[in-house]
Amino acid sequence: MNTFRKQYSKYHALFEEALKRFCADMRHEPPVLTESMCYSLLSGGKRVRPVLFFGALDLFGVDPSAETGLAIALECIHTYSLIHDDLPAMDNDDFRRGNPSSHKVFGEANAILAGDALLSEAMCLLLREAGRGERHRSAACCLAEAAGADGMIAGQSADLLYTGKAGGEKELQFIYSRKTGKLIAAPIVMAAHLGGGDVAAAEAFGQALGFLFQLTDDLLDERGESAKMGKTVGKDREEDKLTCVKVYGMERAELQVRQTAEHCRQRLAAFGGNEFLSSFIDLVQNRDN
Amino acid sequence: MNTFRKQYSKYHALFEEALKRFCADMRHEPPVLTESMCYSLLSGGKRVRPVLFFGALDLFGVDPSAETGLAIALECIHTYSLIHDDLPAMDNDDFRRGNPSSHKVFGEANAILAGDALLSEAMCLLLREAGRGERHRSAACCLAEAAGADGMIAGQSADLLYTGKAGGEKELQFIYSRKTGKLIAAPIVMAAHLGGGDVAAAEAFGQALGFLFQLTDDLLDERGESAKMGKTVGKDREEDKLTCVKVYGMERAELQVRQTAEHCRQRLAAFGGNEFLSSFIDLVQNRDN
Repeated sequence: MNTFRKQYSKYHALFEEALKRFCADMRHEPPVLTESMCYSLLSGGKRVRPVLFFGALDLFGVDPSAETGLAIALECIHTYSLIHDDLPAMDNDDFRRGNPSSHKVFGEANAILAGDALLSEAMCLLLREAGRGERHRSAACCLAEAAGADGMIAGQSADLLYTGKAGGEKELQFIYSRKTGKLIAAPIVMAAHLGGGDVAAAEAFGQALGFLFQLTDDLLDERGESAKMGKTVGKDREEDKLTCVKVYGMERAELQVRQTAEHCRQRLAAFGGNEFLSSFIDLVQNRDN
Repeated sequence: MNTFRKQYSKYHALFEEALKRFCADMRHEPPVLTESMCYSLLSGGKRVRPVLFFGALDLFGVDPSAETGLAIALECIHTYSLIHDDLPAMDNDDFRRGNPSSHKVFGEANAILAGDALLSEAMCLLLREAGRGERHRSAACCLAEAAGADGMIAGQSADLLYTGKAGGEKELQFIYSRKTGKLIAAPIVMAAHLGGGDVAAAEAFGQALGFLFQLTDDLLDERGESAKMGKTVGKDREEDKLTCVKVYGMERAELQVRQTAEHCRQRLAAFGGNEFLSSFIDLVQNRDN
């Protein structure tokens, strides 16, 4: 586990450094645009997706430090989705990662634009990366699709649709696989594209890991140990959401966590796997924030 | 002018057909996602940007019917910007092109997601087009940048910043060139990339035409003849915006229209120009909606 922590820190530091450079070079006018984009990008977070990307790149023998552009595009997309998700019309969350959410600091209109701008930055970054060759273009396409209307946004839309409504396992799986699964799987699939790995096997592992991630997220929320602090206004809407606890009950949801973690291990083995990604499964299974 | 109208109709029909096919093939789940995306895409409109794109392609000897993918990406970006712009937190417009705006039909949350989804579709389309070769990738990059934080979004952000505040010619020009100019220039610059034309001259003409477009837009608004019908709630905020009438006064603003139209003609001549684009300047100068 100690080796894993060291490796995680190494990837994390590589990403933070690249992101800080990216933000320092940003000169968008008016200044509030740059400020609002950087405020959310640099608000900390575990950088789960970029770290997974770097870990999977190492598995496929690709140098992570040569792929920070794709990692930043990935985080721009994740960050834009959080900004829009926190808006009063969506989850209405006043806090994100312990800090006031974008619309609390910059107002709703600027928060909408900050999200739009981050998605647009990702689009520019991906088109630039696509110029490096066919493998990079495939990786970029994979991320764009994972973020889009058959990916993350479909999950958000379904999440909204089933808020306050009855829904079962089928609906839950649709939401999980899109809202969370697609953007957790994307870095692993991108790495497979770049390293000439088995894309289908990467997708299967990534989806299983995404499922595990959302299961433990719901359980953390249920236990009131969510990393999102000060959630007051948004709490009601959040409680109406379709979660694994609602579908399975607490005990069966915890069983699901163990089964899904085992499933992740099998899927990981199916495409070679490495120590880092194996420990990553343990981290997600046992996470407390 | 009759030849011009025929040509406009031809380009318009080519685009509408491609867009209808694009929407008919859309299968995003849940259905509300596809419905909200298509509702705004298919709500009519003059299709100014795709028509300009096709007209400029003909100037550079590129077959428009081979480039409908880029035209659709362009319209997806324009449409997403209208959906987000109409939101209560932004311009708060209940109507768009004579129809209820997206958030009035689908609710605010779904409207935010519909906008996000359309921008994401554009991202997927552009990455696909980028695979056709270096000219297409350059054209795609040009559109992505025009839409982004140094382009349209910068204009939106500045527009917000100067609403209800004092601002002069410098601020107005910043807003005009980004908010409108970038996405009016983009189709002409993209065509130059695809046809091996003079990109800088295309940009100069496109920016001048965008300026003319926003000048006449402000004047139409001032005369209360805006194409946007039933604007009631958003009216107040709209009236606080920085416009050419506020900066120049009515008489000098009308003089600006004539001078800018002349400027457009010079810029057009500088890269060859054709009858269609020349008549397009007249259309924008004399438009009544």
